[in-house]
Amino acid sequence: MTGRLYVLGIGPGDPELMTLKSVRILGQVPTVFVPKGREEGSSLALSIAQKAADLSGKEIIEAYFPMKKTRASEAGDELDLQWQDTVKAVMERLGRGIDVAFITLGDPTIYSTFFYLHNRLLELDPAISIELVPGVSSITASAARSGTYLGIADDRVAILPANYTGDLHDVLMQFETVVLMKVSKVFSNIVSTLKTANLLDRAVYVARAGMEDEKIVHDLREVREEDLNYFSIVIIRK
Amino acid sequence: MTGRLYVLGIGPGDPELMTLKSVRILGQVPTVFVPKGREEGSSLALSIAQKAADLSGKEIIEAYFPMKKTRASEAGDELDLQWQDTVKAVMERLGRGIDVAFITLGDPTIYSTFFYLHNRLLELDPAISIELVPGVSSITASAARSGTYLGIADDRVAILPANYTGDLHDVLMQFETVVLMKVSKVFSNIVSTLKTANLLDRAVYVARAGMEDEKIVHDLREVREEDLNYFSIVIIRK
Repeated sequence: MTGRLYVLGIGPGDPELMTLKSVRILGQVPTVFVPKGREEGSSLALSIAQKAADLSGKEIIEAYFPMKKTRASEAGDELDLQWQDTVKAVMERLGRGIDVAFITLGDPTIYSTFFYLHNRLLELDPAISIELVPGVSSITASAARSGTYLGIADDRVAILPANYTGDLHDVLMQFETVVLMKVSKVFSNIVSTLKTANLLDRAVYVARAGMEDEKIVHDLREVREEDLNYFSIVIIRK
Repeated sequence: MTGRLYVLGIGPGDPELMTLKSVRILGQVPTVFVPKGREEGSSLALSIAQKAADLSGKEIIEAYFPMKKTRASEAGDELDLQWQDTVKAVMERLGRGIDVAFITLGDPTIYSTFFYLHNRLLELDPAISIELVPGVSSITASAARSGTYLGIADDRVAILPANYTGDLHDVLMQFETVVLMKVSKVFSNIVSTLKTANLLDRAVYVARAGMEDEKIVHDLREVREEDLNYFSIVIIRK
């Protein structure tokens, strides 16, 4: 008898955007793993989940995640060691027949922390029972909150992480919609590329969609230094 | 006093993947608009919503949508006329101070039927109160159900509608992940393009993710004619 690992997307930040399924599973499992990053610690994901589900009396385990831009396959030793503790804690509970949940902001399949852990778990036990439970992505939530859409009909949509190389201009020419993730560190480069492509008035900046301190700016020239945030995206619709 | 139009993403098919917010709003509004398409009529979206929310006693209005691949701006006369009835029905109720919900499969901002209606409503009354409520997209649900991810770290993700022209090969070279939407009508072309690009073993076919008759095929050569479905996607991860 082994337990099951549920990977729960808890949505972009508004507890009401959690799914019925993630709330039900959080009510059932005795142990909840919470990703702990440098940016805001585990407080954000946990505080969202706690507003929709009663977690009192449950075992809460912080799973360290450095939020480095590192592929799992290229992960350094430091990252490895810190994940090792989480891997052990997950495996130990599953081995005792205990179901556990790992919560992740947004959706688990799109730039979530979980997949760094996924391969490691499968290496140790290919028969491990893992269920990925999708959630509302911050990408669609950002589009919704800014009153725009990502695509209709035959539109092509490109999603690029922030540290794209010089070919943003080419992608802007090829796709009807371009979504730029985690833009805060390269924001001025984005503004100048959009200016060159004559697309500055087709862009919207959305930070912390659906959270209490959400910020939406329709003219990117008006985004101030203090508006920039780790959880921010730019949507360009041609 | 005017009512508010809530556009609710009800997720990919599993009623438990509806958000707490969409269930709450469905409980509050007296009128629910249901998109009616050629493929499965309104039965699918309505039946999903009904399994999670009590709609008894509510006014249910079918909003015809032909599921044509037509941009809102290029919509023909036939489409226009059929939407006119829906537009009038929405405006009339909002004018009487009645809140209404428009439900849409998946998420309202990504290839949903709603945005054909959106511009028309804003033309008639730019001050209309519309709230887009994001939902779980069939794209992330398909990834989750097939046990893969759309992106981690610096991965680039492209989402293409089915009737892409000849440059699928180029997009496959440029992006780590490519999602092909509504693939059923061009499936054999996709298989041969993937074969040429030597990516056939990196693809997965997912139809009706999270629904009772879901189908997941990891070898695209094994997808049979009867497995092909309107609600199907192919995910390619390099």
